Amino acid sequence: MNYDNILKEIYTEVSPLFDKGEIAQYIPALSTVPRNKFGMAVCTLDGETYTIGDAYEQFSIQSISKVYSLTLVFKLIGERLWKRVGKEPSGNPFNSLVQLEYEKGIPRNPLINAGSLVLTDILLSEFQEPKKEILNLVRKTSGNNAINYDNAVIASEKITGHRNFALAHFMQSFKNILNPVDDVLDVYFHHCGIAMNCVDLARSFLFLANHGIIPDSGEYVISKSEAKRINALMLTCGLYDESGDFAFRAGLPGKSGVGGGIVAVLPEKLCVSVWGPSLGPAGNSLAGIAALEHFTTLTGMSVF
Amino acid sequence: MNYDNILKEIYTEVSPLFDKGEIAQYIPALSTVPRNKFGMAVCTLDGETYTIGDAYEQFSIQSISKVYSLTLVFKLIGERLWKRVGKEPSGNPFNSLVQLEYEKGIPRNPLINAGSLVLTDILLSEFQEPKKEILNLVRKTSGNNAINYDNAVIASEKITGHRNFALAHFMQSFKNILNPVDDVLDVYFHHCGIAMNCVDLARSFLFLANHGIIPDSGEYVISKSEAKRINALMLTCGLYDESGDFAFRAGLPGKSGVGGGIVAVLPEKLCVSVWGPSLGPAGNSLAGIAALEHFTTLTGMSVF
Amino acid sequence: MNYDNILKEIYTEVSPLFDKGEIAQYIPALSTVPRNKFGMAVCTLDGETYTIGDAYEQFSIQSISKVYSLTLVFKLIGERLWKRVGKEPSGNPFNSLVQLEYEKGIPRNPLINAGSLVLTDILLSEFQEPKKEILNLVRKTSGNNAINYDNAVIASEKITGHRNFALAHFMQSFKNILNPVDDVLDVYFHHCGIAMNCVDLARSFLFLANHGIIPDSGEYVISKSEAKRINALMLTCGLYDESGDFAFRAGLPGKSGVGGGIVAVLPEKLCVSVWGPSLGPAGNSLAGIAALEHFTTLTGMSVF
Amino acid sequence: MNYDNILKEIYTEVSPLFDKGEIAQYIPALSTVPRNKFGMAVCTLDGETYTIGDAYEQFSIQSISKVYSLTLVFKLIGERLWKRVGKEPSGNPFNSLVQLEYEKGIPRNPLINAGSLVLTDILLSEFQEPKKEILNLVRKTSGNNAINYDNAVIASEKITGHRNFALAHFMQSFKNILNPVDDVLDVYFHHCGIAMNCVDLARSFLFLANHGIIPDSGEYVISKSEAKRINALMLTCGLYDESGDFAFRAGLPGKSGVGGGIVAVLPEKLCVSVWGPSLGPAGNSLAGIAALEHFTTLTGMSVF
Repeated sequence: MNYDNILKEIYTEVSPLFDKGEIAQYIPALSTVPRNKFGMAVCTLDGETYTIGDAYEQFSIQSISKVYSLTLVFKLIGERLWKRVGKEPSGNPFNSLVQLEYEKGIPRNPLINAGSLVLTDILLSEFQEPKKEILNLVRKTSGNNAINYDNAVIASEKITGHRNFALAHFMQSFKNILNPVDDVLDVYFHHCGIAMNCVDLARSFLFLANHGIIPDSGEYVISKSEAKRINALMLTCGLYDESGDFAFRAGLPGKSGVGGGIVAVLPEKLCVSVWGPSLGPAGNSLAGIAALEHFTTLTGMSVF
Repeated sequence: MNYDNILKEIYTEVSPLFDKGEIAQYIPALSTVPRNKFGMAVCTLDGETYTIGDAYEQFSIQSISKVYSLTLVFKLIGERLWKRVGKEPSGNPFNSLVQLEYEKGIPRNPLINAGSLVLTDILLSEFQEPKKEILNLVRKTSGNNAINYDNAVIASEKITGHRNFALAHFMQSFKNILNPVDDVLDVYFHHCGIAMNCVDLARSFLFLANHGIIPDSGEYVISKSEAKRINALMLTCGLYDESGDFAFRAGLPGKSGVGGGIVAVLPEKLCVSVWGPSLGPAGNSLAGIAALEHFTTLTGMSVF
Repeated sequence: MNYDNILKEIYTEVSPLFDKGEIAQYIPALSTVPRNKFGMAVCTLDGETYTIGDAYEQFSIQSISKVYSLTLVFKLIGERLWKRVGKEPSGNPFNSLVQLEYEKGIPRNPLINAGSLVLTDILLSEFQEPKKEILNLVRKTSGNNAINYDNAVIASEKITGHRNFALAHFMQSFKNILNPVDDVLDVYFHHCGIAMNCVDLARSFLFLANHGIIPDSGEYVISKSEAKRINALMLTCGLYDESGDFAFRAGLPGKSGVGGGIVAVLPEKLCVSVWGPSLGPAGNSLAGIAALEHFTTLTGMSVF
Repeated sequence: MNYDNILKEIYTEVSPLFDKGEIAQYIPALSTVPRNKFGMAVCTLDGETYTIGDAYEQFSIQSISKVYSLTLVFKLIGERLWKRVGKEPSGNPFNSLVQLEYEKGIPRNPLINAGSLVLTDILLSEFQEPKKEILNLVRKTSGNNAINYDNAVIASEKITGHRNFALAHFMQSFKNILNPVDDVLDVYFHHCGIAMNCVDLARSFLFLANHGIIPDSGEYVISKSEAKRINALMLTCGLYDESGDFAFRAGLPGKSGVGGGIVAVLPEKLCVSVWGPSLGPAGNSLAGIAALEHFTTLTGMSVF
């Protein structure tokens, strides 16, 4: 199947959305990205790549990095993970502390900020150089060794990430963060500050569409069962408080970031990524969600 | 594929769970069901049926009926529905009023009690005989005209359903229930009080695995897109506050009821239903969830 | 001390507030009261009465009746009461269900709707004619046998009191309402629907300023210790979610109603009541609160 | 009136409580205080002092210091204070973040941790040496220049005060903490770490019983109206989530700390302080609350 015409049609359909929504303001280094940026990439298990727009321009992946952390930690400690973080959608904004208080410091799932901070804490306890581990995973799964951190974004987040500091200290009070808060946040902000383009991003998720194996290299990352479970978590929890709506509209497991990126997985077939910096009220790319809904409608493909 | 051996293996695996958990106590007519009842049925789009245990014994479908109501209302008023009910997982127990207060009487989704009461209210406004409409849908999709209401269960719920009365009055105060509360609950309790067996149940959901068409009769129920969207809602919201865990473990869209039934959909292939009356803390059949997890593990099939 | 000049000064000060705020709309029979009504009465333990404005015009006392219910029930069952209702400010609007869910059907205090519904349930269990009992207490403490129910208001509340029906059904689900909901609400709406004027109201609270004894007749109502405790509850909980602000501004135990009345107690000295139908966001009379703040500032008297 | 016999009777009554409850564990330096410590002091406006037990032994005043901060800030910026903090009881535990999230970073009142952190932030903005200012106020109002910080307690709190760090970062995210979090907490922990005995404590609150004037020196601290308002805040909010119960039982404005101290004010008469390190579930001294209830019962004195 050739996706070029579909991508063109999608571009036309979603371009009126570039003026709507808001660029993330709370991370100064992100607030200056032009609103009319838009890229999209489809990478298939057969090795084909289709792109449109700014698909080769780098952006900050932000919360999309939570899937890499989850992959690393799940592989590392398996089911023990679920003693420190849940598997349920939160029903609350991505940085809420309310549920965390009622549930005594156990975050709802690993794809919201609180959950990912716990995963980062585990990485700090298990690895000598946790920053390198994620970067290695991203480079290996995408096949691009040039992928790196964007230090300007990371510095920007450290100055303004008050809510994330609050989450970490709060969980520390429940003994669910064990390393010093400053160390946990240093690693966390680094993961969020990875810069990638749409093609790298879609390619780096292909192992999740391929039962845990990187299709290009044949390298094993995680088991078939683990890949299925990470996809399930993305479907129920991947777009914060808009996960249900995204499943309803696009019908694919996916993960978003406040940099405007979204990546989605169609198991046994392909991955599709999109970047549009202007966000809706739940913190997800407006054009990105619309593009992915069009994609599954036009191709007739979804997990449902 | 022949599922008989898989069903036998599942039966052996889950039988130790019959003694665990609790039979639903708050509906007196349900509290006397023996704990060791267990049935399971697989119905394929090819017309094959595989069963084990008490798969031909009737039980009260309870909240599973919410999928029939959703099908009827979605078909009837389409996207207008989403003005009165959301599409997100609730992150709260099935009968919680907390979120309803913060969100001014708009229930999180149509598969929790509050949401289904709104759907029932719409059915009352749109149909002369709403009780008949659901029954007709169930009979038509299952191909079994003998399916009926269990009046003992319905009478039992009316006496003890204080929380549902509270939910309806509460939404009435937000003007999201328009018909008299007693009328809404009469219809609601009737839907919950439908009695079916596992085979009827699996068969009646086949149209959702078949892009909206009943496979036996070829009759159109809803569009392909609507079927996909109902499956998405079941995956994110179908098992109350355990939906994320069920997606993680079983990887299928499904819906449960406090009568101990669960039904799940594998698009383009089959439906599988299970009945085990003893419930876990979230109100879902303990043996049922385990059985469906085994089913997808043993067959290697899931939407992910 | 002669309060006539103080009352005149207060009237002038608060009259600009008559145009601000909102008349209670959710009880149709109350929504037609003219906004420029204002009355105030001071009744001393010495038997003096000072009035201004519409102090002899009747209005619906609404939630002020909760103090009479509390007096009756506290006298009747004493400390056993606190098994079914708390003593803490709620920190939430007067008709909130949120806290009730977290605290398993035990209302925060007897002066919010949920708490008063529990008290009404107790009155129903303990008395043959609970409606008569409250009326008798009001007549006895005020010395006015003509005080009666306003049946138009009561009928109006029954039609629109969805939230109160929700609260009662909700507590019934926690077994903290034992009588049929319709019976409980019939009595509750009757209590709320008592019509009184400012002079009757101030006089009827004098026993709380007088260690439990009606000063005119010398009749014993409750003990000194019980009177002190009811005053304490009024101070911490009497003005819903504005109780702290009222204590801060006026420094007196008091109770308000959505009919626009407020009554306050200065122990060992006097009671002061005020009526102004236009309400602030917390449901308390705007002019009434301002008038009572002026009263304690001008007289230099408060409990602090 | 001679209070010696009353204090003896109270000591006998409350001593069985020494074995009940829990010593505060989360501040290591406090956790080693012996459970059977108990002191009580009555200081009258006439200059009389009555004591029993360990009334001259120092303890950590902890949250009682919030009243001194409030006095300083209220005097300094007056009504502007209420833009950054509320005046209502919280209805939640003293260190809850839930309400803070719903109310966008505005703490409910100045006597819970979040509110006092905001006050500390204001002191940091307004004073060169905020630590000295509070100490000066305490020394001046108590007449004891030897009162000082307990550095062991302060160091202990800094290591374990995760929840307070969380609160400050959280409010920083709402722009209601303007100074660096580490600076705010340094001052906050110093205030909490003041060591005093019962006599100093009761004496230092006498200006609140005396319309804002220190009775010994005649020195003006705050206005009559401000003193009244601080007393009102103590009555509605001074004992965290047990404030209503304390008002009900003791009927006095008061403030507690997790070091086991409580101080209460009887306007125009006296102050009474008590120290018992073992705490009930709301974090208030068990023996202390009981002692103050006995005190108002035996003397027949309360604000109600």
